[in-house]
Amino acid sequence: MKYEIRFLPSEITTRAPEGTTIFNAANWAGLAIDSTCGGRGTCGKCKVRVEQGNAPVREADRKFLSPGELNDGWRLSCRAVLHSDCVVDIPRLMGNPKAALLGYGHHVILNPNVAKIYLELSEPNLEDQVSDLARIHAALDKEGYDVRSNLTLWRSLPNILRGSNFQVTAVIVGDELIALEPGDTREKNYGIAVDVGTTSVVCAIVNLNTGAVEAVKSDLNRQAPFGADVISRVSHTMFEKEGLVELQARIVETLNALLEQLTAQSGIARENIYEAVIVGNATMLHLLLGIDPEPISVAPFIPTITQPVTFRAADLTPDASSRTPRHPSTMRDDASPHPSPYQGEGQGVRLNPEARVSTLPHLGAYVGADIVAGILATDLTRNKDGKLRLLIDVGTNGEIVLGSVNGTLATAAPAGPAFEGAQIKNGMRASAGAIEGVTITPQGVSLQIIGGDVEPLGIAGSGLVDAVAEMYRAGIVDASGRMIRVEDARGKLPDALVERLVTIDGVRAFRLTDVESNIVLTQQDIRALQFAKGSIAAGVEVLMQQMGVTANDLHEVLLAGSFGSYINPASARTIGLVPWVPVEKIIAVGNSAGEGAKIALLSFREREAANRIPEFIEYVELSGRGEFNDIFTDALAFPKLTNDERRTTEEPRVMEIASSVVVGPSS
Amino acid sequence: MKYEIRFLPSEITTRAPEGTTIFNAANWAGLAIDSTCGGRGTCGKCKVRVEQGNAPVREADRKFLSPGELNDGWRLSCRAVLHSDCVVDIPRLMGNPKAALLGYGHHVILNPNVAKIYLELSEPNLEDQVSDLARIHAALDKEGYDVRSNLTLWRSLPNILRGSNFQVTAVIVGDELIALEPGDTREKNYGIAVDVGTTSVVCAIVNLNTGAVEAVKSDLNRQAPFGADVISRVSHTMFEKEGLVELQARIVETLNALLEQLTAQSGIARENIYEAVIVGNATMLHLLLGIDPEPISVAPFIPTITQPVTFRAADLTPDASSRTPRHPSTMRDDASPHPSPYQGEGQGVRLNPEARVSTLPHLGAYVGADIVAGILATDLTRNKDGKLRLLIDVGTNGEIVLGSVNGTLATAAPAGPAFEGAQIKNGMRASAGAIEGVTITPQGVSLQIIGGDVEPLGIAGSGLVDAVAEMYRAGIVDASGRMIRVEDARGKLPDALVERLVTIDGVRAFRLTDVESNIVLTQQDIRALQFAKGSIAAGVEVLMQQMGVTANDLHEVLLAGSFGSYINPASARTIGLVPWVPVEKIIAVGNSAGEGAKIALLSFREREAANRIPEFIEYVELSGRGEFNDIFTDALAFPKLTNDERRTTEEPRVMEIASSVVVGPSS
Repeated sequence: MKYEIRFLPSEITTRAPEGTTIFNAANWAGLAIDSTCGGRGTCGKCKVRVEQGNAPVREADRKFLSPGELNDGWRLSCRAVLHSDCVVDIPRLMGNPKAALLGYGHHVILNPNVAKIYLELSEPNLEDQVSDLARIHAALDKEGYDVRSNLTLWRSLPNILRGSNFQVTAVIVGDELIALEPGDTREKNYGIAVDVGTTSVVCAIVNLNTGAVEAVKSDLNRQAPFGADVISRVSHTMFEKEGLVELQARIVETLNALLEQLTAQSGIARENIYEAVIVGNATMLHLLLGIDPEPISVAPFIPTITQPVTFRAADLTPDASSRTPRHPSTMRDDASPHPSPYQGEGQGVRLNPEARVSTLPHLGAYVGADIVAGILATDLTRNKDGKLRLLIDVGTNGEIVLGSVNGTLATAAPAGPAFEGAQIKNGMRASAGAIEGVTITPQGVSLQIIGGDVEPLGIAGSGLVDAVAEMYRAGIVDASGRMIRVEDARGKLPDALVERLVTIDGVRAFRLTDVESNIVLTQQDIRALQFAKGSIAAGVEVLMQQMGVTANDLHEVLLAGSFGSYINPASARTIGLVPWVPVEKIIAVGNSAGEGAKIALLSFREREAANRIPEFIEYVELSGRGEFNDIFTDALAFPKLTNDERRTTEEPRVMEIASSVVVGPSS
Repeated sequence: MKYEIRFLPSEITTRAPEGTTIFNAANWAGLAIDSTCGGRGTCGKCKVRVEQGNAPVREADRKFLSPGELNDGWRLSCRAVLHSDCVVDIPRLMGNPKAALLGYGHHVILNPNVAKIYLELSEPNLEDQVSDLARIHAALDKEGYDVRSNLTLWRSLPNILRGSNFQVTAVIVGDELIALEPGDTREKNYGIAVDVGTTSVVCAIVNLNTGAVEAVKSDLNRQAPFGADVISRVSHTMFEKEGLVELQARIVETLNALLEQLTAQSGIARENIYEAVIVGNATMLHLLLGIDPEPISVAPFIPTITQPVTFRAADLTPDASSRTPRHPSTMRDDASPHPSPYQGEGQGVRLNPEARVSTLPHLGAYVGADIVAGILATDLTRNKDGKLRLLIDVGTNGEIVLGSVNGTLATAAPAGPAFEGAQIKNGMRASAGAIEGVTITPQGVSLQIIGGDVEPLGIAGSGLVDAVAEMYRAGIVDASGRMIRVEDARGKLPDALVERLVTIDGVRAFRLTDVESNIVLTQQDIRALQFAKGSIAAGVEVLMQQMGVTANDLHEVLLAGSFGSYINPASARTIGLVPWVPVEKIIAVGNSAGEGAKIALLSFREREAANRIPEFIEYVELSGRGEFNDIFTDALAFPKLTNDERRTTEEPRVMEIASSVVVGPSS
């Protein structure tokens, strides 16, 4: 049951389900309503006038509105729930709300979940014996905050109040009073946005007063030695006695090391970081929380938690004693009498000792909170243009989201590690010396190498896509992925290319560099890439079939993640990794997961919108579908080349961190 | 603003303030409404029909009631808030609610804050990939429970669910899911009710399914070596570096020792104890929570917390590192490099690891949660008879509550330690060998001694009151408290008494025993008692004056605490400790604090009623009142004897644990 709401004076109309608050409906429609409590009914600032429609008077209304106002239809929009169509007048915002531009052109009105309130309390005396805690609650109540608090705070109260002449700053996260600080400390108010990837972890310190990113840094996930992908990480927890504790310790260690550098670099004290929004795939977040990820990894693929959760950063403490292994008999047990070495990160993630962590929801076992953050950052499910977009995060798993404000599907396709450079003869991670762009001309091969004018060391995932696309365009491989034989190539291909065709251990290969560097792409490498891209392309196809759309219906194809940033859109299209759409419609959206985390950190309303994203998305499980294998087999081949492509005019993009190196014909 | 509600079919009428829910109003009026969620709007069972009056439809109403029912005036009583007079029909309870008789004739309908719900969950499969946590929430939602949960629970989920074939018992305390147990464990459901006294601690294990007290035990508070009264305990925290941590450790240790014995004796596992309701005076509860009690002890006497609070039992962990001393310069610092020895009780109070503790509110710095519990147990503020009652808890501080359902005052009078047997020449605590009852006849003195036929060792508080009352009745002391001189006594008093008048170190005294035992009561002892009883009597007088009532208006005088149980009512009246009312109106109510804690443990509705008690009571601070000293001076003398008293026919009560010993004239 949906109702229509017309907002005045903007004349914007939206439809929302029964039970939605006017506050949320306005927010989804992109209309800002004043509020300091974020829609909790405690600040009284979000009043609107209901001109038509049914809005019964609620408790909170009576608290904040006069009988005259109630009579005139004024209601708190966060308490007013839709039970009919209605017309609602939203007063102009009094203050000028601060805003930040984040994500993919996403305009975010600052409305963080952390509030710092400076209180000048009256000192108690024999006529005013109100207790410390009640005194603070009364003062916060006046400011519109109705909060909970805990034992740690209570213990700090008598000394902080009396040591500061009862002038303190209350730190509120959500509906919890987490700390009191002596004096006026409102200026120092920070949070962190974190994207925990299987390979790397990105952390940004964000100023919650201004929206500015004060420092940002990415680092390798220190779980990496236990396996490159989520499956090997999960295996480690299954077969090593303290595997889970160990992996949790590693990720907590990674975060603490990043924080160490970020706080040193920015001069921001960890005590002034009060909240973290953390996104990542389901396995990574389960490991971070210390929850056994095994049921995620075996059919029927069940995460323990998909909903958004909140907890203390200090509670992310790896603790061997609290976990019982599920496979004691199959576990390697070194029978060590020593206590676990992983008790070391005993303070969890070291922010303010009472800082809270919030996660975003997962859509399913293999479409995680990082993708939800990406959907938030790209506005895929909310863009009022109603146009269809395809979001692909290419990695070991390819996460695929297809949809618009009218409905969205999501799935995960097991791509394997080819895009990460694994299982490729000269493959490597996208780091200094990696080939990330390839152009093949009749005169030879020109390469873009990460780090600029350095000796090429191997091929990164984006270089692999580029190389294979160029080899296909140049006729070195055919549509089935077969590499041309030297004898067939002679006379057909320029000599400068023919001489690069070699055979290594009986396998055909194409040399990208001079003989000295000797970096080659083998027939097997091409097959690996075909499997990887075929899997993702099949996933896209399944979603398009289920939705009854084709590539022509796609308004944009958004490539997320660092791989998405470096990949050449034309090449991705040439090999069939993405559907055939005009090249300008293939857009790299960067670290959309991290952007989404920042948006959720800076705006509680946006976070609530993110938390509701799963309601609007249907998760499609590929492993349950019979037709998937057929579609996958069809998707292995490369699409027919267009005339444009056969000699493409697209120049491969040159990233800031790369520079062109032309490698001439070798002698 | 109060409204009148008439309940049908009972025709009981009550008045309640604007904003009260019908559910609570019915509860205060003693009417039971069905509910499993305890008034949280989630079970949908508390529906009533509003026949007259204004009750707007709320969200929860729409969830549980049909449009037809809504039209007929049916509402969830826990959501329906009073904004006008009304008439409400309460359906007869379907089930037969279990009830227990507790406190002072208090009939308690079982409605504990702990719920154990057995869930037979469907196992996930590829068509049903709902996460573990969402699966549990959905099942609990069906049962009417909308709960929060935490990291510890999430960590336990995957293994507990898969180890029990998804058949588990959910343990809910309040709105928190604190544990999942494999299989059906509903039978094992316990809580503890605790009264933390300055001197002794009482703990009862209560069966939350039946209301039965399974085991109960009292023990000395192990803080006792640090001082007999709250002031010396507070001093210890002020002047010893780790004083606060030490005292917290001692009380946690006391509770754990009691639990050790109670669980052993009852065979109940601590894992099946899920909640504790703890009462005590403000200083004791601050020490238990590890909160600096100093501001309670010095003007203007401000507790950190007066409101009821809830926290994890495991968090009652004495931890030196978390507390900063307030008086570092005046503290004795042994400069020990060793870690605090009080880290030992690192698991807090050892119940189920996730058990919750709730406290009741304090009325003020010196009228604590123990008194609020006593008010609950005696129904002082709620008894529908509307009659005026005086509740006195006699101890180092005398807590005094005067009132009825029409209004109540409370105060604390500093009685000093005389009633505890301190500062009395032959005083002792009420233990074996203590004189607790005294009768003086012309033939001599007869004594009741604790432990029966044993040699008297000293005088307990109740014996002191009895002895002085009898000496006054017999003419050995006069109304001003002066003891008669031997020379004046000769011829006026029987010889058997005159020969007991002695002088010790120049001070007059009266010998209660034979010469061998030589237990005497000195002129100084009588003065000490006068100060103690004068202080309490003055407190009572201040409250009566403020309320504009006299002793004639008192329906009952309730004596609480162990001292109240042993004191002779007639003697208490004779010396003016209590106002002059007929002796049958002076009633010992026993450990009303412990009874109140049990009631609050067994019924969440009663607990909510207890938590609101402070709203109905005005706390009177004696130290701020100029007239107190005058009233106190007047209250030092003994009241004029009535003819009845001069040769009283009242026999001193003989307690079960005592027996009469007649001590004849000594030679």
